[in-house]
Amino acid sequence: MEEERRLRGLWGEARELSLGTSGQVDCLDAPPSPLRFLRDYVSANKPCLVSRAATRGWPAISLWSDDAYLRRVLHGCAVSVHLTPHGRADSLVPRPSACGRPRGLCFASAAVRSMDFSDALALIAATGSPSSPTVAYAQQQNDCFRAEYSALAGDVVPDVPWATEALGCLPEAVNLWIGNGRSETSFHKDHYENLYAVITGEKHFLLLPPTDVHRLYIRHYPAARYVLDDGKDATGELHLELEEPERQVPWCSVDPYPETPESMAEQREAFPLYFDGPKPFECIVKAGEILYLPSMWFHHVRQTPDRNGRTIAVNYWYDMQFDIKYAYFNFLQSIDCTPPAGKPSAEVCNRDASDHSDDAEPEIYETSLVSHSG
Amino acid sequence: MEEERRLRGLWGEARELSLGTSGQVDCLDAPPSPLRFLRDYVSANKPCLVSRAATRGWPAISLWSDDAYLRRVLHGCAVSVHLTPHGRADSLVPRPSACGRPRGLCFASAAVRSMDFSDALALIAATGSPSSPTVAYAQQQNDCFRAEYSALAGDVVPDVPWATEALGCLPEAVNLWIGNGRSETSFHKDHYENLYAVITGEKHFLLLPPTDVHRLYIRHYPAARYVLDDGKDATGELHLELEEPERQVPWCSVDPYPETPESMAEQREAFPLYFDGPKPFECIVKAGEILYLPSMWFHHVRQTPDRNGRTIAVNYWYDMQFDIKYAYFNFLQSIDCTPPAGKPSAEVCNRDASDHSDDAEPEIYETSLVSHSG
Repeated sequence: MEEERRLRGLWGEARELSLGTSGQVDCLDAPPSPLRFLRDYVSANKPCLVSRAATRGWPAISLWSDDAYLRRVLHGCAVSVHLTPHGRADSLVPRPSACGRPRGLCFASAAVRSMDFSDALALIAATGSPSSPTVAYAQQQNDCFRAEYSALAGDVVPDVPWATEALGCLPEAVNLWIGNGRSETSFHKDHYENLYAVITGEKHFLLLPPTDVHRLYIRHYPAARYVLDDGKDATGELHLELEEPERQVPWCSVDPYPETPESMAEQREAFPLYFDGPKPFECIVKAGEILYLPSMWFHHVRQTPDRNGRTIAVNYWYDMQFDIKYAYFNFLQSIDCTPPAGKPSAEVCNRDASDHSDDAEPEIYETSLVSHSG
Repeated sequence: MEEERRLRGLWGEARELSLGTSGQVDCLDAPPSPLRFLRDYVSANKPCLVSRAATRGWPAISLWSDDAYLRRVLHGCAVSVHLTPHGRADSLVPRPSACGRPRGLCFASAAVRSMDFSDALALIAATGSPSSPTVAYAQQQNDCFRAEYSALAGDVVPDVPWATEALGCLPEAVNLWIGNGRSETSFHKDHYENLYAVITGEKHFLLLPPTDVHRLYIRHYPAARYVLDDGKDATGELHLELEEPERQVPWCSVDPYPETPESMAEQREAFPLYFDGPKPFECIVKAGEILYLPSMWFHHVRQTPDRNGRTIAVNYWYDMQFDIKYAYFNFLQSIDCTPPAGKPSAEVCNRDASDHSDDAEPEIYETSLVSHSG
């Protein structure tokens, strides 16, 4: 198909010209100068990983793996905890069954509970076990670090100085993430420049540049939410409820790590552009390192906990520039690359004939409302 | 047509998001800081015009409008002069007639003569008159300022400091341009970041962003060259010769200023995406001002001479980054937007059915060999 040939040319050229073909992210021994960061990475829309030198002098690096320290400093603070049955918030799961409803997938958000920090920490540890019916992830992408965790403010920098100087503004939001090894974030993109600092544990990123948008098969799925049974505490079972009235959310369809050979076969058949294209960039961010995750890059995130069973990260979201790159992206995304009729894949990917899910505008703006950064 | 609708969306969005819809270029009162220049203009691929403060302290500004000064300093220096019958080098003109050849246009390069600077200066003045059968333009885009005009080196800066710091490299080439009011440069693009300083007289730019590539109707034309009749001096008549063997040059087809109402009607019919799309950005660069002309922007240049009948400019070409923007551009250019069959425009635009002139690769690399900056 002509469109597919051209798209494959674009994916290859972006790698050959700029991103590299190794699938590895540039590693920097020391924080870049603001000019270099802007020129070689932000302007080029290219990720880089900065070594532990990036967080030299941050008290968090030594303090935050100590439970007693965190409990003492955050004593009495209420924090937001996301609860899911499997560790995947904002991900695609089978629709809850209901008479007369079509089968297929829905976009499931976590149940969110506010609780005392000590309880949250205990819950994150307890739900790291595969036998736990829920998984807890302390996070809230509404600048939660500067709100709920302000008692920890002195342990990290308020902004990343070389990024602030390069980007010419302070962070729009700073978020904290405390999870165990079961939490996973599905492929999505954010409309921010992201400086992602891991404090303890490791984060494993799969990254695809915005040029590869068709490889994620962004489609519309009905929104659903996990709900805790009334009266149950946060370790109780969750059930899934579709939103009423129905709301459609555009989301990436690809699961890069399906659990069974059968689901891998299904994924491969449904999403050939992902599985038969260039490998995603892989990047492990270790404690003390900072990943620059450029705006509009698709990312999937898993984590490996520290010896206390936790991964903690702080990310700084800076406003992105909506410039010619963004206009090019929207144009690219508006190009339809559906397979010719006769190769339906409705079972797996829930695509309705009436659902113009590749239209650029709704996707862009709606996605930003539900964006997650790992 | 679906492609055209999407392309128009792209042109509009680039303007609404970043470039502005006024058709005016950002004007800066003072040279920007390197970070601001990189962030707001280079990274965004957006032009800006810096006021006379940009050339404060350049001796050239006061000295180069003085003939006696130039003649004295460049005494005995040989310089390259481009000769054309109408002031348009590297432009499309009717093919020279020959039995059995198809009619249509060809891409005509100037005759180039090396001559003593004093003779060049006299020739530029003399050929400014509409009655002159030739027009002389002293220029050569091979770093000519640092080679042929090195005696003037102290009169301008060797590089533009804020651009050098932003771009992280010294200029790849510095070129000098001395012309009269008849010289004009047809639409084209360069694979360089361009800092364009006018020393005396004015330059009038029409600018279109790379998103608008389809509006220029880049097609292949056979290469031709003006030749001075043997034994004639540089004021003699020129005739046009097609290159043998034939060589095809991809070039922008649009003439934004056709001379007659008839040719305007032809242009409008042949190139509707240019004439019926958003107006090009217009920018007049006056003596002492510097235009930042971003890489890959299409530009058409005319000039108004000073009281001595001359416009003099120096431009600094810096290497561009071949990053995601360039990959997007090549992808965009690979999209065919030819009108449906039944609306041929072969008379005006010389398109052969066998000529895949919208293919990205040959265009990109060949164009760079013949690029001209005004």
